[in-house]
Amino acid sequence: MPLSPDQQADIDAQRAATTPTRRATAPGIEAHLYSAIPVLDHGFVRVVDYMGDDAAIVQAARVSYGAGTKAVSDDRGLIRYLMRHWHSTPFEMAEIKLHVKLPIFVARQWIRHRTANVNEYSARYSILDGEFYIPAPEHLAAQSTANHQGRGAVLEGAEAQRVLDILRGDAARAYDHYQAMLGTEGQQGLARELARMNLPANIYTQWYWKTDLHNLFHFLHLRADPHAQYEIRAYAEAICKVVEDWVPHAWGAFRDYRLGGAHLSAQGLDCVRRMLRGEAVTQETSGMSKGEWREFLALLESERQG
Amino acid sequence: MPLSPDQQADIDAQRAATTPTRRATAPGIEAHLYSAIPVLDHGFVRVVDYMGDDAAIVQAARVSYGAGTKAVSDDRGLIRYLMRHWHSTPFEMAEIKLHVKLPIFVARQWIRHRTANVNEYSARYSILDGEFYIPAPEHLAAQSTANHQGRGAVLEGAEAQRVLDILRGDAARAYDHYQAMLGTEGQQGLARELARMNLPANIYTQWYWKTDLHNLFHFLHLRADPHAQYEIRAYAEAICKVVEDWVPHAWGAFRDYRLGGAHLSAQGLDCVRRMLRGEAVTQETSGMSKGEWREFLALLESERQG
Amino acid sequence: MPLSPDQQADIDAQRAATTPTRRATAPGIEAHLYSAIPVLDHGFVRVVDYMGDDAAIVQAARVSYGAGTKAVSDDRGLIRYLMRHWHSTPFEMAEIKLHVKLPIFVARQWIRHRTANVNEYSARYSILDGEFYIPAPEHLAAQSTANHQGRGAVLEGAEAQRVLDILRGDAARAYDHYQAMLGTEGQQGLARELARMNLPANIYTQWYWKTDLHNLFHFLHLRADPHAQYEIRAYAEAICKVVEDWVPHAWGAFRDYRLGGAHLSAQGLDCVRRMLRGEAVTQETSGMSKGEWREFLALLESERQG
Amino acid sequence: MPLSPDQQADIDAQRAATTPTRRATAPGIEAHLYSAIPVLDHGFVRVVDYMGDDAAIVQAARVSYGAGTKAVSDDRGLIRYLMRHWHSTPFEMAEIKLHVKLPIFVARQWIRHRTANVNEYSARYSILDGEFYIPAPEHLAAQSTANHQGRGAVLEGAEAQRVLDILRGDAARAYDHYQAMLGTEGQQGLARELARMNLPANIYTQWYWKTDLHNLFHFLHLRADPHAQYEIRAYAEAICKVVEDWVPHAWGAFRDYRLGGAHLSAQGLDCVRRMLRGEAVTQETSGMSKGEWREFLALLESERQG
Repeated sequence: MPLSPDQQADIDAQRAATTPTRRATAPGIEAHLYSAIPVLDHGFVRVVDYMGDDAAIVQAARVSYGAGTKAVSDDRGLIRYLMRHWHSTPFEMAEIKLHVKLPIFVARQWIRHRTANVNEYSARYSILDGEFYIPAPEHLAAQSTANHQGRGAVLEGAEAQRVLDILRGDAARAYDHYQAMLGTEGQQGLARELARMNLPANIYTQWYWKTDLHNLFHFLHLRADPHAQYEIRAYAEAICKVVEDWVPHAWGAFRDYRLGGAHLSAQGLDCVRRMLRGEAVTQETSGMSKGEWREFLALLESERQG
Repeated sequence: MPLSPDQQADIDAQRAATTPTRRATAPGIEAHLYSAIPVLDHGFVRVVDYMGDDAAIVQAARVSYGAGTKAVSDDRGLIRYLMRHWHSTPFEMAEIKLHVKLPIFVARQWIRHRTANVNEYSARYSILDGEFYIPAPEHLAAQSTANHQGRGAVLEGAEAQRVLDILRGDAARAYDHYQAMLGTEGQQGLARELARMNLPANIYTQWYWKTDLHNLFHFLHLRADPHAQYEIRAYAEAICKVVEDWVPHAWGAFRDYRLGGAHLSAQGLDCVRRMLRGEAVTQETSGMSKGEWREFLALLESERQG
Repeated sequence: MPLSPDQQADIDAQRAATTPTRRATAPGIEAHLYSAIPVLDHGFVRVVDYMGDDAAIVQAARVSYGAGTKAVSDDRGLIRYLMRHWHSTPFEMAEIKLHVKLPIFVARQWIRHRTANVNEYSARYSILDGEFYIPAPEHLAAQSTANHQGRGAVLEGAEAQRVLDILRGDAARAYDHYQAMLGTEGQQGLARELARMNLPANIYTQWYWKTDLHNLFHFLHLRADPHAQYEIRAYAEAICKVVEDWVPHAWGAFRDYRLGGAHLSAQGLDCVRRMLRGEAVTQETSGMSKGEWREFLALLESERQG
Repeated sequence: MPLSPDQQADIDAQRAATTPTRRATAPGIEAHLYSAIPVLDHGFVRVVDYMGDDAAIVQAARVSYGAGTKAVSDDRGLIRYLMRHWHSTPFEMAEIKLHVKLPIFVARQWIRHRTANVNEYSARYSILDGEFYIPAPEHLAAQSTANHQGRGAVLEGAEAQRVLDILRGDAARAYDHYQAMLGTEGQQGLARELARMNLPANIYTQWYWKTDLHNLFHFLHLRADPHAQYEIRAYAEAICKVVEDWVPHAWGAFRDYRLGGAHLSAQGLDCVRRMLRGEAVTQETSGMSKGEWREFLALLESERQG
């Protein structure tokens, strides 16, 4: 992720300057501000701004005049209660703004989370840089044979090499052609809004993305999950570390009640109760389909996640 | 709006403390932080937090690495361009959080603006204070005879007195009954979630309300408008002053392109063109209904608003 | 819920008329169309329109050219898979529009569900009818002593009578005063937008409310729950019956995976695994607070809900 | 837009079958149901379902028991009043569901309209077809020299040919490579979720897209506009024809008050008033910047749009 000297100077200037504010300040995230956390081969996540901290969640839940409760331990307990009982509105009272550089195919998954504000770099207005995501060898995976939308074993040897050669070659050619079509030397030059259509989905774009903590948790729950595509998961995991430093109590509650928890169906709950009473439950007597039963057993046997 | 000594002490403590931050700060709104701006007889608006400033709007529009443009004059020009051409997403990158005390009938209008975060004081969980909105004499208006949903002349004399007597008497009795039903002296005491149903819609409630600048402008456009009910307009106007101090360039653009501007229909635009060419246009030749024509003439003749 | 003869005639006329359509039609909900399902003492829920059926959910999930799968059994399996794995977007492809008559204090809870479309009867423009919710004796409950926002035992004897007398008396007086302030006989008459402020929160209002099936399920999950206030739960339960007739497969999946299911925290899941391996887990070794542990034991012991 | 025989048979079967319904039906849109309206070289828009008609807008605005007003002319007048005065909620009570086939770079613009429901064909789960958008010669335009995000003159001769050769050649090669990477003949085969990243943004995708009429009008206002990129405008214009047949009164109001209308700033309105009084206003005395003044003069002089 090579920043230009100008960009780095802008960032350094912002990091160096502090001003006094009366607003709630969260020391843990101040340290992240403006720094680019590298993700994938050319991407990053930068915290541009934030609003609120753990105490602000409590303050909103209580519609209070002051700032949170007197004792920090009470804040923690209330935040855990709110998370456990799905009281989501106090978490909406904290907000974060990120600057993200990411491949277009990742951006297309990300944008499906609609409760957020987005400003994307415009390829109608400007010319995209020639940076493309090329997976590291350990992420170049075969199609899963068990799961229609998942990955299997890592590709090896000649096959891996062929894929990398294709990705690198096509990216380079596409960018050469992009510049050739845009060029105005001895020709008119194609409109930027048209020339971009020839670029593959692994080219990097950038955006400012802003959302509240409740919706961010929803995003992280889906995208920091092992079922998410690795490339978006890499961004989600970078953001998880930021959130942990920003609102440690809310993060702890999210980790315990969402990331590391599990949902049981009516049948699953019934089976657990019967098993705890000593009954030997089988798929046939579980009320579940074979697929559900397999997922249920895996849940009860697997080591704790999160 | 009498704050208790404890509440005032909490607010004073928050106002007194400043901490250094790397975030964008807007000096004009820092001065407002936590202070309660009085609205109506017992209500207020308090700025609890904000994110961003004029430069942050520019920064998001450019998806830039630094903070706004080098020259402040360029920021202003770009912000006006964005507002004029309905580019709304950069304005979504600024956010504000307010603590508002307001009568329930005002809250019911306000909540219709759905793109916002809300935490309201819970009358299931807590007991409401006995504060009711009683209009000042100059706001005690008759039903408009011209407009189904508007006010006419101010009530006077005996009629005004009768209305005030009813409002004051019913509010006092309702609150006495509320307390009598809740009381546990010699009885079980009615559930709070039921007792509240007997309170009239002019009792005050409170909430934390958070929204982005684009949606706030939409709220202000509708609610700071002469057609809005006076009581919600009073809140909108208090917020307008805060916004002007927070993001002066965005405010100026909003004032010039929205609050003070006007929308012409296809027929209205056609009539203006014909009138400028010297044609004498009448309702009959305008293509408009009588109602539209009346509104059109009023627009062309009235003094500039805003 | 007395409908006027004119209203009933309008409804009967709509129910009597059918027209042929090429759209997906769900026979189970056609039978409900326009009929008013009574709720509380004067309220109702009427289905005004709907879009889609179980097959339409499948069709959208597959982005298919035809209508669902060939075999109905496949539709059921796919719908259950989608619900189990939190694939919510196909459920957003079904939509329902309801006409609801409900007390204002219920409307204030309901409106917090923001992802919906609402048109409420305007008390600025029109005059409200004099209908107020008075709880049936079995719903007149004391404040819970265990739960800050819940109900305890039913009130009895003189206390119950006192409460009912207050509610009935205040409602009648408030409506008399409303009419007296609005009246134009020998006076100007107060503006409707002001007069309404004196009416208590148990007066009935009406609205058209439209939402998609995913958001409706979210609403029902929260509001058909035993922790919801009885009065809104009564509406949620009426809607549950409509949904069961409309999209039986989606309803079944929602019942099994949401209504009747349960969420385990990381600690809860860990405890279940240890208990199934024969370990004697106590609150002290559970990693849970006392409150959580109590809720956890209740979950494992209670009979299956839903 | 070649549909497979199976797809065409599915569509024909749906078109042929009608069932009786009690719901509001709109004859004008019934004729469109399921037919694919061709857009660009391989794309289409298909109406899959709709809810409501002009009368349903009126019915919701009145929160009425019956269906619209007695007289159709009253419906039209009320709808125009609602549109003129920005009463948007009744228009949210009509809903439409479309199946759209569109290039990915168009989908990326479209998805920015967040208040909609979307189910997109999954290239993680399935293999994309080899269809790419190649502009017709008359849409192969040069970059505008006046407007950073617009098109200028049409490319001609050798330059046009070079661009088309690049687009066609790269599309064919990209699709060959896509298949080569996915293939399992003598190799493992790359995961579909990775292979798709090498495909350019002019490949076609498909989705189901559902939105309400108010948000659809907002989409059409921005995307059927001359400033929108031609390729998305082609879709917007196809949808405009559907809407005109579906809700003719609402369409007429939208055309007159939005599409064909114009917004004046406070300065613009002031200048119009002064010009109508006979004053000779210049840019210097207008209070506008040079850019605004140019836009203002163009507005007053241009022929009526829409």
